[in-house]
Amino acid sequence: MELISGGICAAKGFKANGIHCGIRKNRTKKDLALIVSDVPASAAAVYTTNLVKGAPLLLNMRNLSDGKAQAVICNSGNANTCNANGIQIAKEMCVLVAEATGINEKDVVVASTGVIGQPLDITPIAEGMEELKMGLSYEGSKDAAEAIMTTDTIAKEVAVEFVIDGKTCRMGGIAKGSGMIHPNMATMLVFITTDCAISPEMLQKALSADIKNTFNMVSVDGDTSTNDMVTVLANGMAGNAEITEENEDFAVFMKALNTLTVNLCRMIAGDGEGATKLLECIATGADDEETAKICAKSVICSSLLKSAMFGADANWGRVLCAIGYSGARVDVTKIDVSFRSSKGTICVCENGAGVPFSEEKAKEILLEKEIEILISLGDGKYSASAWGCDLTYDYVKINGDYRT
Amino acid sequence: MELISGGICAAKGFKANGIHCGIRKNRTKKDLALIVSDVPASAAAVYTTNLVKGAPLLLNMRNLSDGKAQAVICNSGNANTCNANGIQIAKEMCVLVAEATGINEKDVVVASTGVIGQPLDITPIAEGMEELKMGLSYEGSKDAAEAIMTTDTIAKEVAVEFVIDGKTCRMGGIAKGSGMIHPNMATMLVFITTDCAISPEMLQKALSADIKNTFNMVSVDGDTSTNDMVTVLANGMAGNAEITEENEDFAVFMKALNTLTVNLCRMIAGDGEGATKLLECIATGADDEETAKICAKSVICSSLLKSAMFGADANWGRVLCAIGYSGARVDVTKIDVSFRSSKGTICVCENGAGVPFSEEKAKEILLEKEIEILISLGDGKYSASAWGCDLTYDYVKINGDYRT
Repeated sequence: MELISGGICAAKGFKANGIHCGIRKNRTKKDLALIVSDVPASAAAVYTTNLVKGAPLLLNMRNLSDGKAQAVICNSGNANTCNANGIQIAKEMCVLVAEATGINEKDVVVASTGVIGQPLDITPIAEGMEELKMGLSYEGSKDAAEAIMTTDTIAKEVAVEFVIDGKTCRMGGIAKGSGMIHPNMATMLVFITTDCAISPEMLQKALSADIKNTFNMVSVDGDTSTNDMVTVLANGMAGNAEITEENEDFAVFMKALNTLTVNLCRMIAGDGEGATKLLECIATGADDEETAKICAKSVICSSLLKSAMFGADANWGRVLCAIGYSGARVDVTKIDVSFRSSKGTICVCENGAGVPFSEEKAKEILLEKEIEILISLGDGKYSASAWGCDLTYDYVKINGDYRT
Repeated sequence: MELISGGICAAKGFKANGIHCGIRKNRTKKDLALIVSDVPASAAAVYTTNLVKGAPLLLNMRNLSDGKAQAVICNSGNANTCNANGIQIAKEMCVLVAEATGINEKDVVVASTGVIGQPLDITPIAEGMEELKMGLSYEGSKDAAEAIMTTDTIAKEVAVEFVIDGKTCRMGGIAKGSGMIHPNMATMLVFITTDCAISPEMLQKALSADIKNTFNMVSVDGDTSTNDMVTVLANGMAGNAEITEENEDFAVFMKALNTLTVNLCRMIAGDGEGATKLLECIATGADDEETAKICAKSVICSSLLKSAMFGADANWGRVLCAIGYSGARVDVTKIDVSFRSSKGTICVCENGAGVPFSEEKAKEILLEKEIEILISLGDGKYSASAWGCDLTYDYVKINGDYRT
């Protein structure tokens, strides 16, 4: 298992491209991405649990029911959500890809991200399709990653290499995160490709299991988006024997997937809207996994703790407070809290009460860009991680006038 | 039922005072409040559901079990929470009041608010007790209201006058709110006094019922404090026949209490940390009360919607998004959304989809200081209100370095 450079084109047989077609007014920002597999692929997806779902998701739920797909089209700048003609527009996007590539329209995954409730004009997409298709290449991952960004400040790509059945397989992903991030059974927009051969059923099983410990443990602002979706396409071009059951190969695949998704989670959290710091809360010593998860996520979601981290203030009372209202059943008198970064570790609370510590050292630790909040809940053997970011002036600035 | 000027001294037989005793370094900020009834009073209280509870609350739960109290002592600047000696210090505060006033220490309600996890020194409280007691007066409400403030920018007092059993009764309250406000079965610190005669059981019944529609529907930042508490003292000095059952008098009492608490809710939300606007979300047309409440509160809690309101941006998609992830079962295609202020009302969404509207007019409406977000969920007959505030740069500033 090895992290390699690249993104969705790291795996064999995947081309991608990203262009500016005109959905966004700003011509320097790409707004339309296309990913195409050379051959039909197994496909799996998870979707937001928000009752208000973007039109593209509603269409994908239908089209992906056969576990097959060969292309992904995604625009930024408009979420195509809460529009009377939303489904129709999403369908037209699939038809345009089908016409340009010869792929069946039902094998096209469609996604949109951006402002909610403004009709999405199909015209620029139709007019840009030729350019988008002509530019498809095995080096196009970065262009696609850029085209799906909204308020993201960096394009997010990760890739891993692993061996299954004696064959070298690769898996890569791109993501857009930034705001409205508080996934619940799904998340932001993440597109993953792999050349590993795996059946649609096992692919879905792998994805559904993985997100519980990865994307569902990320929060930027506590708002679960209407358009969250994670999709994986597996085209089998690595030549391994298809994974069809929970065997050793499946375990390797799961590990590769987890390596990829944890890295994407960290990138998404660290590039949260306005963020200056990546926060990871690691809860250990819990009596069960759910308790560890609930505590870690509650801490990472606290606006007060997030503000304190922005100010590099070791205000650990807010950590205890967030555990206290999380709903988890814990013994408060057993909780220890430490802060850790590349500058060291400092213990600030033992057995639910404060311990003397050097404010100077705490400041030095908390001024770093990546902070770990370590909470020990007791003697249990379960642990969990959650990822988030600090709450800053820029979050407010970005969201105070997002539409204009 | 009439709003009158004053606070906790509006009712007969209640004296109050607030001083700077030295818990806070800043000498211009009062930090110790005392409220005393001339005679023993029925008492009721509700507490935070945070598993981490301030030591004063743990002591009150014991002392108020007989439904009787005669005094309230409250300090700001330190929450006396997560300290090994917390209960002992809270008890000493009650003993100091008992010694100074002759009231039984178990009839003293104790409260603390401020930073969590720093030991509370009893010395300044002991040294200030004589001054605090000597200054008690029937005009001391404002001083007490100031002494319980943390990051609040205005002292919060409300009073009402009503008639029960032919007798004029009065009820008044003071509150501290500002940050860590997301009450759940209890809230911030609120002290209410009345001269109406009512049994402890009926007083508790009235309070427990009222908070569900008032303090539990307020959110500033989604963080449920460890030290939330609402206490009512009713000393019976108005001379009415004691309310001991759910009769017409009880209904009048409930209405008086609700008038008082709704006003305090609005003051707390409008003075939320960093707030520039009071937001009220009114959900109507729900099939049941719970649905209306869940939707209203989810909207008021959305960081994205709060940021949009700060920017006077009519980004109604975020309203639908927040309803969608609230967990309430609603038909999205029946939701209408409007924004209202003293400058008028503008409809921005009908049947779950956007309608054309004047951005100029919307801006004019949203630039006001008090904004109503009206959501109609369908044809049901239930409704609910929730109160909150916008998310601003100053929230981040205040909480980025709260301890120093």
